[in-house]
Amino acid sequence: MSEISVAQYELVYNAFSFTIATMGAATLFFWLGRSQVSDAYKPALTITGLVTAIALYHYVRILQSWDASYDVVNGQITATGIAFNQAYRYVDWLLTVPLLLIELILVMRLSSADTWSKGTRLGVLAALMIVLGYPGEISSDSSTRWLWWAAAMVPFAWIVYELFVGLGKSIAAQPDNVRGLVNTARWLTVISWSFYPVVFVFPMIGLTGGTAAAAVEVGYTVADIVAKAVFGVVIYMIAVRKSQAEGVAASRGAVAA
Amino acid sequence: MSEISVAQYELVYNAFSFTIATMGAATLFFWLGRSQVSDAYKPALTITGLVTAIALYHYVRILQSWDASYDVVNGQITATGIAFNQAYRYVDWLLTVPLLLIELILVMRLSSADTWSKGTRLGVLAALMIVLGYPGEISSDSSTRWLWWAAAMVPFAWIVYELFVGLGKSIAAQPDNVRGLVNTARWLTVISWSFYPVVFVFPMIGLTGGTAAAAVEVGYTVADIVAKAVFGVVIYMIAVRKSQAEGVAASRGAVAA
Repeated sequence: MSEISVAQYELVYNAFSFTIATMGAATLFFWLGRSQVSDAYKPALTITGLVTAIALYHYVRILQSWDASYDVVNGQITATGIAFNQAYRYVDWLLTVPLLLIELILVMRLSSADTWSKGTRLGVLAALMIVLGYPGEISSDSSTRWLWWAAAMVPFAWIVYELFVGLGKSIAAQPDNVRGLVNTARWLTVISWSFYPVVFVFPMIGLTGGTAAAAVEVGYTVADIVAKAVFGVVIYMIAVRKSQAEGVAASRGAVAA
Repeated sequence: MSEISVAQYELVYNAFSFTIATMGAATLFFWLGRSQVSDAYKPALTITGLVTAIALYHYVRILQSWDASYDVVNGQITATGIAFNQAYRYVDWLLTVPLLLIELILVMRLSSADTWSKGTRLGVLAALMIVLGYPGEISSDSSTRWLWWAAAMVPFAWIVYELFVGLGKSIAAQPDNVRGLVNTARWLTVISWSFYPVVFVFPMIGLTGGTAAAAVEVGYTVADIVAKAVFGVVIYMIAVRKSQAEGVAASRGAVAA
């Protein structure tokens, strides 16, 4: 990892710092927004904020680890011999990726039984995907990396199938004013999650040394911001619109009664 | 403790960091969830969050102590000579283990007299169990360890008896929609707490050196996550369901009146 240039080191450093600011701001936005939605949608916003809060914690650790890995003095960069801890990302994903699917299910407000069964199934698949990716991530051997990449793609494909087929009927049953947003949330999940297996492949397709290291870190960082903070804003918008529509319906019901 | 490998050191390090993220997220989840339950169940969620908050504090200290015990440079691990402070765990348990039993009692909503008497008895037994385990934990002599292990098992067995016999009638009197969950909480307590005396025994049954040290740390960590965070989610679910059921009953009562 010592082939990295000062510019590459600083790009990654600043990307991490940007992410700390973004995740912190997103967390506060989601939790302050809880008071704007009806009780039924508060758990969805609680969990949306938990995801960005957990990411905030890990990006603080990731930045510290990056900082400890290199010394930059008088424009010269030297590796300190302390390894950058990529495991923070996997630990983060192990917690946040199941929660991301659970926030989507919670904001859809399915029946208790459906919430429980779909939440459990998608949560377990998501955790399995992360666990299968890790042995590949820590290997420097290309064929080992491809093997675990392929293994992790199985639960990923299953999650995509569940989102498009398993949840298809439930999405069609969402109210008019949020159906488009729920569909956006679903696509945002699939597209932003697709970044990860692509970034994972960078070192296996000839991107080596400092360029590969910087591309992997910036790539994962952009993917995390889209999958967690941007996705969270869509969840927030769905929760606000559904609360307004249901609030109006409830007060009409009260007047009619 | 210097025989530990880099991989074992990193496994334990990442397990501690994972636990910090989990305990922090769990604390915020329980405290934000207070607004979703009726006043009667807010103390249970306050205490559920206190348990994970206290664990969060101790895992931050535990990670710092672990970090200070070893240097890993250029893939080589060396002991610094600074001892890893295992006492943080016992200090944590002395506070959290009585609170865990109290949160179970609070969410059951017994009579004031029963809450007080059962809470005090179970709290004292739990504290006694931790105090008796500690002299064994800090001893490297197998027979000393077995002696204190056996002593701590007496209050543990008494707690199990209280949970199954003393609380049996109260659990049978819980509403239908939560009786299964209360039973789950009781079993989760007994099963997750059983991890601790098993982990304690690792060094006494031939697990030595780095493997034993890593197995003990990861074992206690998994047990802590199950006993505090997972158990807390069950307490949260009981509190939410009872609040909903009692809220509906109360509004029906108001209409009838």
